[in-house]
Amino acid sequence: MTSTPRIVEVRQNVLKRNDEIARALRQRFQDAGLFVVSLVSSPGAGKTAFLEKTLTLLKQQYRPAALVGDLATDNDAARLARSQAPVKQITTGTLCHLEAAMVERALEGWNLSDLDFLFIENVGNLVCPASYDLGEELRLVLLSVTEGEDKPLKYPTIFNSADVAIITKIDLADAVEFDRDAAYRNIEAVRPGMRIFEASAKTGTGLESWLRFLMTATRDT
Amino acid sequence: MTSTPRIVEVRQNVLKRNDEIARALRQRFQDAGLFVVSLVSSPGAGKTAFLEKTLTLLKQQYRPAALVGDLATDNDAARLARSQAPVKQITTGTLCHLEAAMVERALEGWNLSDLDFLFIENVGNLVCPASYDLGEELRLVLLSVTEGEDKPLKYPTIFNSADVAIITKIDLADAVEFDRDAAYRNIEAVRPGMRIFEASAKTGTGLESWLRFLMTATRDT
Repeated sequence: MTSTPRIVEVRQNVLKRNDEIARALRQRFQDAGLFVVSLVSSPGAGKTAFLEKTLTLLKQQYRPAALVGDLATDNDAARLARSQAPVKQITTGTLCHLEAAMVERALEGWNLSDLDFLFIENVGNLVCPASYDLGEELRLVLLSVTEGEDKPLKYPTIFNSADVAIITKIDLADAVEFDRDAAYRNIEAVRPGMRIFEASAKTGTGLESWLRFLMTATRDT
Repeated sequence: MTSTPRIVEVRQNVLKRNDEIARALRQRFQDAGLFVVSLVSSPGAGKTAFLEKTLTLLKQQYRPAALVGDLATDNDAARLARSQAPVKQITTGTLCHLEAAMVERALEGWNLSDLDFLFIENVGNLVCPASYDLGEELRLVLLSVTEGEDKPLKYPTIFNSADVAIITKIDLADAVEFDRDAAYRNIEAVRPGMRIFEASAKTGTGLESWLRFLMTATRDT
């Protein structure tokens, strides 16, 4: 298509501007002693359920908060708010990903020093969020057992942009004949050495290991 | 962000150019007597499994073919080729959707008059494919029972751009406590009167109704 070079140029400008805002955000988060985790996945992989459990468990000892992105509705913010943590919805309209500027705007009015953890749940999309730094310290990519074990191979960029993989809905592994070896092999193929957790927000399986890891990651920064 | 108006302008040019190519494709398809169906969904909603079954069943009496889009790998083309139908993979790199020009290029070397049905499986993404006409006659949006019943509300644009909804992995409905009434209500809320089918590529449930509908749709054009 004839317009491709112009698109590439505009896209590079957008990404450059996003990176600048993300860098400033990262500095603000560090200055405030706030540990920031973002979550990316397909629609319906279970980000919100996993995050609701994480917020509820953290809330016993810490001050977590969450931002959640969606094209439309504030359903997810309502679900996350049940954890009693402060939550804000970012509605993106037709935009397929969150950008650092949206995070910056959503944080207005919050005193970051009053928080220990901030979780940013991206729009459900395994492609577009890959290129946008949100200033997070840790990016989780979630993959449910019902999606098929080849997702890492088919969406390598997002797995490469993430630090940790969470295999969700592990309680359904038998029902969907989840091939654990294939999933691990495929993650390893695109992101060697990637840390992997298995979890079920429904049964609680794996949440303790994940939180233990999170605490260690916090101390390491 | 300061660059937004320029992005909007470039995006409009891309969409305009895409629409022109899609219109030309649609004319070619009609001239060749070829019925074209596209499939959109989240990653892992079961597009490929549903399509493999559809191709296999159609192949007994008709001449179906398929194009399948993915960022990386030709796994899906290999799976679809088991149906013995002609299949081509379109690898999009980092692009989050198929465009009409990619379909046009992929069709080079095929004599459209030798085919009765062409299926175009889009990249797994509930956002970006919505805006790109591919010259298809019928667009299916697939939603698996494991994804959550609120997907139509959260991704209204793609449901609005589609003609038919297929609820997939219906064999897992009980295991995931799928709320059928909520799913239908949410589809109806964003796309009143939308035709809905329930299917399981694993058990074969619902495929006969879907094919019967497809035959009727073909005759109506």
